[in-house]
Amino acid sequence: MRNIYIIGVGLIGGSIAKDVKKLNPGISIHGIDANETHLQEALTLKLIDKKANFEDLKHADLVIVSIPVDATETLLPHILDVVSEDTLVIDSGSTKASICKAVAKHPKRRNFLATHPIAGTEFSGPKAAVEGLFMNKTNIICEIEKTAFKLQERALTIFKIMGMNMRYMNPEAHDKHIAYVSHLSHISAFMLGKTVIEKEKNERDIFDLAGSGFASTVRLAKSSPHMWTPIFKQNKVNVIETLDEYINNLVKFKEFMQTDNFDAIFKDMENTNHIKDILNGIK
Amino acid sequence: MRNIYIIGVGLIGGSIAKDVKKLNPGISIHGIDANETHLQEALTLKLIDKKANFEDLKHADLVIVSIPVDATETLLPHILDVVSEDTLVIDSGSTKASICKAVAKHPKRRNFLATHPIAGTEFSGPKAAVEGLFMNKTNIICEIEKTAFKLQERALTIFKIMGMNMRYMNPEAHDKHIAYVSHLSHISAFMLGKTVIEKEKNERDIFDLAGSGFASTVRLAKSSPHMWTPIFKQNKVNVIETLDEYINNLVKFKEFMQTDNFDAIFKDMENTNHIKDILNGIK
Repeated sequence: MRNIYIIGVGLIGGSIAKDVKKLNPGISIHGIDANETHLQEALTLKLIDKKANFEDLKHADLVIVSIPVDATETLLPHILDVVSEDTLVIDSGSTKASICKAVAKHPKRRNFLATHPIAGTEFSGPKAAVEGLFMNKTNIICEIEKTAFKLQERALTIFKIMGMNMRYMNPEAHDKHIAYVSHLSHISAFMLGKTVIEKEKNERDIFDLAGSGFASTVRLAKSSPHMWTPIFKQNKVNVIETLDEYINNLVKFKEFMQTDNFDAIFKDMENTNHIKDILNGIK
Repeated sequence: MRNIYIIGVGLIGGSIAKDVKKLNPGISIHGIDANETHLQEALTLKLIDKKANFEDLKHADLVIVSIPVDATETLLPHILDVVSEDTLVIDSGSTKASICKAVAKHPKRRNFLATHPIAGTEFSGPKAAVEGLFMNKTNIICEIEKTAFKLQERALTIFKIMGMNMRYMNPEAHDKHIAYVSHLSHISAFMLGKTVIEKEKNERDIFDLAGSGFASTVRLAKSSPHMWTPIFKQNKVNVIETLDEYINNLVKFKEFMQTDNFDAIFKDMENTNHIKDILNGIK
């Protein structure tokens, strides 16, 4: 494997580039990005060795697609059109069903592997790329059986070297589960931020009172709307289901408050403290 | 100042004890706690020098009250009954209106200073106490004009040595603002944890998919229900107001999703990204 092409040289693409380069300095990393400023930044930061064009993908041994999920859905069939019979194409999107569907009947479906590395920060762009981002993190792999054996092997070798733990799921199960543990967390943080900012318009001093607890709960509200709008769009049905359940729980909590049922509030919180044990398992 | 009494030797009381002892090793720190196990732990951990009884408070130069806010409301008048004319009594509760009201007409009101140090972690008990917890943190002080001059001075000297930045507010404004930046964050995290745990009952593998984003957003759901139930009770009206606004924003977000108004969702998130600048100011 000599030529890697990274489409989307941001947080995820750039961090993969850093790891791959460190683990195998002989590899050439080529960058493709719709944002020329990002591409230039990636070059300056030495995330990539060269800029490339879409047509150059025919020379790729490996293509990493790390762009917003709507762009992946549109672009992926064209990428497969261009690459050679021996090229492995991996995406890293936060939704999997739409993306897998977009290439389900593509003649080069076996060249593609659908993955979702559960790693990242609230930052974006080439400057957000960090070495070792994926160490000890989970990588969800969907429909591995649809990828050619030797390309499966190539992918797993890279992921193992990067320190990732593999989990195999079908795309529908992935999208349903991830709506709870990732997509809902983002909405919860964004709406908390919105609620407090709206209040702040009239109450200037409010943020002087905020501590590390608020900062932690609202952290994900720094995330990129360019990345997250298409995720919510592609995972609409599942996200609405999680939102319904979250809103119901909040309404119930409010009703307990209104009827002075503080025993119920105590129990709600006590039962949820069990999250401690669960979080201990999260790196 | 030679004798400090700490009522409630947990995260806050224990951390104050650590700082005071470090800054002035000659001071004797006496501990009082309804939980005998905690009291013994505080002694073993050397947070306190001695166990004490309620009647001993008459020997105190300074009393720190760091217990759940309902207990503070009940106990504070009795503490003021016992202490000497020259004793400074400070509370550290997360609500201020009920507590100030409970001693408003007490003959020793001038011995009391109402404070809320915006510092802490999601952990509790003596083992959670840490040195330097209050360094560069905000301390909200209410009704300072009702405290005797020389006791104001004594308190401010201690807070300054601990590295805190003082903010002065009336108790009602405190409770209203803190409902947004602290109390709502806790409910948001608790209900997120509850929603995901409920789902997990049927979907065992769900937490394998959780990453650091979920961990951060749900972190406050580890907090103690013993501490938080009385806070929500005392600040009921303000908390219900914040919950109403939060639920409304979530419902609007859901409606945007249902009607495929992803432009509105993009704008909601983009406007809330402004939280970045705000959070940069939070230590």
